[in-house]
Amino acid sequence: MPKSRKKTNKYESVKSKKPAVNASKGVSEVDSLRAEIIVLQKQVNILQAISEITAKDFKLSDILDRFLSTVMDATSSEAGSILLVEKHTNALYFASAKGGKASQIKKFKLAIGEGVAGWVAQTGKPMITPDAAADKRHTTRFDKNLKYKTRNIMCAPLKFDHDILGVIEMLNKKKGKAFDNRDLETLLIFTPYISAIVKNAGLLTDNKEKIERLEHLMGITEYVNSTLELDILLDKMLAASTHMLQAEAGSILLLERDELVFASATGAQKETIKNIRVPIGEGIAGWVAREDRSVLVADAQNDPRFFKKADEKTTFKTRSIIAVPLKTKQRLVGVMEVINKKGGDFFNEDDKNLLEALANQAAVAIENAKLYTETQDMFMNTIKCLAETIDKKDNYTRHHSDGVTTYSMEIGKALGIPDAELKELKIAALFHDIGKIGVDESILRKPAKLTEQEFLEIKKHPDEGANILEPIPQLKDILPVIRHHHERFDGNGYPAGLIGEDIPMHSRIISIADTLDAMLTDRPYRKGLPLETCIQEIQHCSGTQFDPEIVAVAIKAIKKYFSKKVKK
Amino acid sequence: MPKSRKKTNKYESVKSKKPAVNASKGVSEVDSLRAEIIVLQKQVNILQAISEITAKDFKLSDILDRFLSTVMDATSSEAGSILLVEKHTNALYFASAKGGKASQIKKFKLAIGEGVAGWVAQTGKPMITPDAAADKRHTTRFDKNLKYKTRNIMCAPLKFDHDILGVIEMLNKKKGKAFDNRDLETLLIFTPYISAIVKNAGLLTDNKEKIERLEHLMGITEYVNSTLELDILLDKMLAASTHMLQAEAGSILLLERDELVFASATGAQKETIKNIRVPIGEGIAGWVAREDRSVLVADAQNDPRFFKKADEKTTFKTRSIIAVPLKTKQRLVGVMEVINKKGGDFFNEDDKNLLEALANQAAVAIENAKLYTETQDMFMNTIKCLAETIDKKDNYTRHHSDGVTTYSMEIGKALGIPDAELKELKIAALFHDIGKIGVDESILRKPAKLTEQEFLEIKKHPDEGANILEPIPQLKDILPVIRHHHERFDGNGYPAGLIGEDIPMHSRIISIADTLDAMLTDRPYRKGLPLETCIQEIQHCSGTQFDPEIVAVAIKAIKKYFSKKVKK
Repeated sequence: MPKSRKKTNKYESVKSKKPAVNASKGVSEVDSLRAEIIVLQKQVNILQAISEITAKDFKLSDILDRFLSTVMDATSSEAGSILLVEKHTNALYFASAKGGKASQIKKFKLAIGEGVAGWVAQTGKPMITPDAAADKRHTTRFDKNLKYKTRNIMCAPLKFDHDILGVIEMLNKKKGKAFDNRDLETLLIFTPYISAIVKNAGLLTDNKEKIERLEHLMGITEYVNSTLELDILLDKMLAASTHMLQAEAGSILLLERDELVFASATGAQKETIKNIRVPIGEGIAGWVAREDRSVLVADAQNDPRFFKKADEKTTFKTRSIIAVPLKTKQRLVGVMEVINKKGGDFFNEDDKNLLEALANQAAVAIENAKLYTETQDMFMNTIKCLAETIDKKDNYTRHHSDGVTTYSMEIGKALGIPDAELKELKIAALFHDIGKIGVDESILRKPAKLTEQEFLEIKKHPDEGANILEPIPQLKDILPVIRHHHERFDGNGYPAGLIGEDIPMHSRIISIADTLDAMLTDRPYRKGLPLETCIQEIQHCSGTQFDPEIVAVAIKAIKKYFSKKVKK
Repeated sequence: MPKSRKKTNKYESVKSKKPAVNASKGVSEVDSLRAEIIVLQKQVNILQAISEITAKDFKLSDILDRFLSTVMDATSSEAGSILLVEKHTNALYFASAKGGKASQIKKFKLAIGEGVAGWVAQTGKPMITPDAAADKRHTTRFDKNLKYKTRNIMCAPLKFDHDILGVIEMLNKKKGKAFDNRDLETLLIFTPYISAIVKNAGLLTDNKEKIERLEHLMGITEYVNSTLELDILLDKMLAASTHMLQAEAGSILLLERDELVFASATGAQKETIKNIRVPIGEGIAGWVAREDRSVLVADAQNDPRFFKKADEKTTFKTRSIIAVPLKTKQRLVGVMEVINKKGGDFFNEDDKNLLEALANQAAVAIENAKLYTETQDMFMNTIKCLAETIDKKDNYTRHHSDGVTTYSMEIGKALGIPDAELKELKIAALFHDIGKIGVDESILRKPAKLTEQEFLEIKKHPDEGANILEPIPQLKDILPVIRHHHERFDGNGYPAGLIGEDIPMHSRIISIADTLDAMLTDRPYRKGLPLETCIQEIQHCSGTQFDPEIVAVAIKAIKKYFSKKVKK
C-alpha cells in the first residue's frame, strides 16, 4: 500500500515542536502569538483533563467514555468510538461510542483489516480520510445498517510498546469541515494515555480472572478431596468440572490395564455409557491417553479421532470436547472430558487450561481414592474369604456368613442405618461365627443330636469370636455385636441372657438374618425351607426370639430382596 | 497547624487557568505574549514527556526514575526523590532519588509525620519551604548523616482518590534561587500521572503476589495429597509450610479425643516433642483449638497463652508463632504452628492468611490419610489376629506368625526391598500358615512323631493357604509366596519341588524366618535353641535348604535385630 504509506509519513510532522501558526504570514505578530497561545492553552487544558481522568478510579468503561468525550470536544467531532481488540476472537469491538448512532453500534464487531478502523488496527498507523465515500478502505456496512452518513474520518491506533490494543476513531468534523493535521495532533496527545489505561485494565482483569479461577480451583480441590470413595469422588469431580466450564456433559475414563473404561458420566447417558471400554489410541479420549496431552476439539463430529460409539448408544449429540489426561507425577490415571459448552458457544483455550489445572489435582485424588478403595476391598474380601473358610468346617453352613451378611445389609438399609454404620454391620455379620474357628470339626459336623457338653462347646463361639477380634482397636465397636448375636429378645438367649434393647441393635439384626439363612439352607437331613415358611417362622418368633420392630421392617426387606432376585 | 494551612491555601491558586505572566505589567504586549508562550510550551513539552513515559513498559522503578528526572529538569532542582508508603511498616521509603546524596539516601526510611516529606504525607497537602533551616518541620537527620546542605524544599503528595501513596520532594532550586508557585504548578502537573502509575503498579504487584501464592498453594496441595501415609503426609506438609513461610520450625498437633497431641515437628526437637499432649485451651495451640480461629503471636515469651513446656524440653527459644486450626467442613482435625521467621523478622498478617489457606487443604488431606491408615491398620491387625488364632490351634506355635513376620521384615529391609513390596511380604508372612485352618488339631498338636498319612495332611497347608486367599484379587501376588514357602533351594521341598530362583523371592525369605522362629521357640519336649545355634544351623543349610545370597544378608540382619532387642 504505497499510497497510504505516503499519506501517513506526512502525519509524522504532526509531532514537530515548531508552532504550526508560525507558518502563516501576513497576520500581525500579536495576532499570530495570540493564535499560538490559544492552541497551546488548548493542549494544556487537555493535559489538565487527562490528569483528572487518570488519577481517579479504574473502571475502564467510565474512563474510556470520559476520554472519548474529551477528545471529541477537543477535535470538534460529531461522533467517535474507541474500539478494542477482543482477546478470543481477535475482532474489534466498540468499548465506547458517543454521538451519531452510538447506542446501536455497540452490537457490531469489526474484523482486523475491515474498514478504516480495521485498516488502522492492522497497519498501526494513524490516518485522516477527508472524503469517506472516495476511500476504498471505508466500509459502508455501518452507514447502511444504521442509516448514518459518514463524511470524513480521523483514526489512530492505541498501542502499548509494539502491541496494538485497539483504535480510536472520530467521525464527521463539526460545521461541515474536514479533519486536519492539527486535529490529528490533538488526537495523538490522548492515545498514549488511553493505551496505558487499556493495557493496565487488561492486565488487572487478566490477573483478577486468574485469581478467581485459582481460588475456585482451590475450592474444588478441597471439595473433591473430601471423599475417598472412588465413585462419589468421580461424580463430585465431574459435577464441579462441568459446572466450572459450563459444559452440558462430561465423563471420566480410568485406565485399567491397557484400556480406558468410562467410570463416571453426567447427564442422561450416565448409566448407558458406564463400563464402555475404549482402547488406547482410539477416540478422542484414547488419543489423549496415547499422546499424553490435552486436546480441544471444536467440531467433534468431523474430527477423525472422535469415537462415535458413545453417541450411538445414546441420543446425545457431541459438538465440541475438551479432553485432558489425568496424571500424577508417576503415571497416567485416566482421561477427563467435558462436552458441549452451554448456550451453543465453543470451548476455548482458557477453558482447556482451566481443566488442565484441575486435572493434576483430580489425578492425585483419584489415586488416593483408588488406593483407599482397594485397601478397603482387600479387607472386606479377606474377611469374607476367611469367614467362608470357617463356614466350610461346618459342612452344613458353606456360604452361611455370606448369606447372613446379605440379609443383614438388606435389613440394615431398610432400617435407614447410615453408611458408616452399615460398614460395621457388614464386618460383624461376616465375622459373627469367627469364634467357631476353635470349635472341633467333629462337633460342628456331627449329624446326630449334640450332647449337652458338645452344645456347651458350641455356645462358646460368640464369646470366643469377640475375644479373637479384641486386640483390633478399629473393630472394638463390633465386639459386642458378635458376642451377643445369640441373645433372644425375651432374655432366654446366650451368652449373657440380655433382654430387649440391651442387646446391641446390630446383634438383633444379625440374629434374624442368621436364622433366616439357616432355615433357607439345605441340610443333609432336610431340604432348605421355602421362603414363605421361613418368614412365617420369623414372624412367629417376633417378640420372643426377635425384636418385633425389626421383624416388621425385616420381613418387608427380605420379601423385596427375593422378589428382585427372582426377576433377575 | 493554622500557619501551614494558610500557606497551602495560597497554592490552590496554582491551578488557575489565568496566564500567570499577565500579572507582570510594564513589559510590551509582544514580550508578555512571548513569555506566556514559553511557559505554555514548557507545559506542553511536559505532556509530551509524560506520554512517552506512560505508554511503554511497567517496571515501576524505571518509570519513577524517568519521571523524577523530567520533573527535576522542569523545576530546575538540584536533587529530588519519590518516597512511597511501605505497606507493612507504613513508613516512607525512597523509591527513586537523584542528585545530591541520592546513592546513600536509599537506605533510610522516614516515619509519616517526620520531616517535610513526612508532613506532606500526613496532611496530603503540597508545600514550599523557602528556607529549610527556618522551618521546624524540616528534619536535619539526613543532612547531618549525609553531609548535605538542604537550602529549600518543594514537596507534593502522590494521591489516588483519597489514598496517599507517597510524596515527591524537590531539594535546592538551582542557581541559589528558591522554589516559587510556578515551580509547584509544574510539579503538580506530574503528580496525578505518577500516582496513577504507582497505584497501578501496586495493584499489579499485589495481584501477582496473590497469583504466585495461589499457584504455590496448588503445588503444595498436590504435593501433600500425593501420599496417604499419615506420618509421611504430616512431615511433607510441615516441610512445605515452614519453607513457604520461611519459618525456623513448625509442628502439627492432632486432636485425639479431647487433647492435642504433637504428631509432627521439624528441626532438632522433632523426636523430643512428639507425643507431648496439650489440653484444649492450654498453650497457644490449645487456645486456637478452643477458639477455633488462627492467631499471630509476635512475642511468644510474653504471651500468657504460650505453653512453655515445649521449649523447656528443648533448647529451642520460641520468639513468634502463627497457629491455625486444621479443620474440614465437618470437624477440627488439629492445629498447625510455624515458629520464628528466619532472619529475625516477625510474621505478618499475609503469612497468617497464607497458612490459613493451606490449612483447609491440609485438614482434608489429614482426614483422608487418617481414614486410609486406619483401614490399613484394621486390615493388618485383623489378619494378625486371625493368624494368631490359627497359631493357637497348634500348641507349640503360639505367636509363630508374628515371629515369622518380624524376621521376614528385618531380612526384607536388609535386602533393600521397596516399601510397597515390604507390605506384601508382611501380609504373606502373617498368612503363611493360614492353610492350617483346615488341618485337624489332633495332628497339629500331636506330641509324637507323625505318621506318613498325617505328614501328608500337614504338607497340604501351603497349597490350602493359597487356595483360601485365591478369591481376593488384591492378594493375587502373595498366593505363590504362600504356596511355595516350604520349597527348598535344592529342589527337595514341597509342594512343587521348585529349585533356586524359581522359588518366589519372598518365599525364600519366609522360609528362613520360619525355620528361625521354629528353632527359637520352646517346645514341650525341648527349650528353644540359643540364637547362636540357630544362626549356625541356618548357615549350615545355606545352599541346600536356603538361598545362600539371602542367608548372607539374613544372618547379619537377624544378629543386628537381636542385639538391638537386648539393649532395649
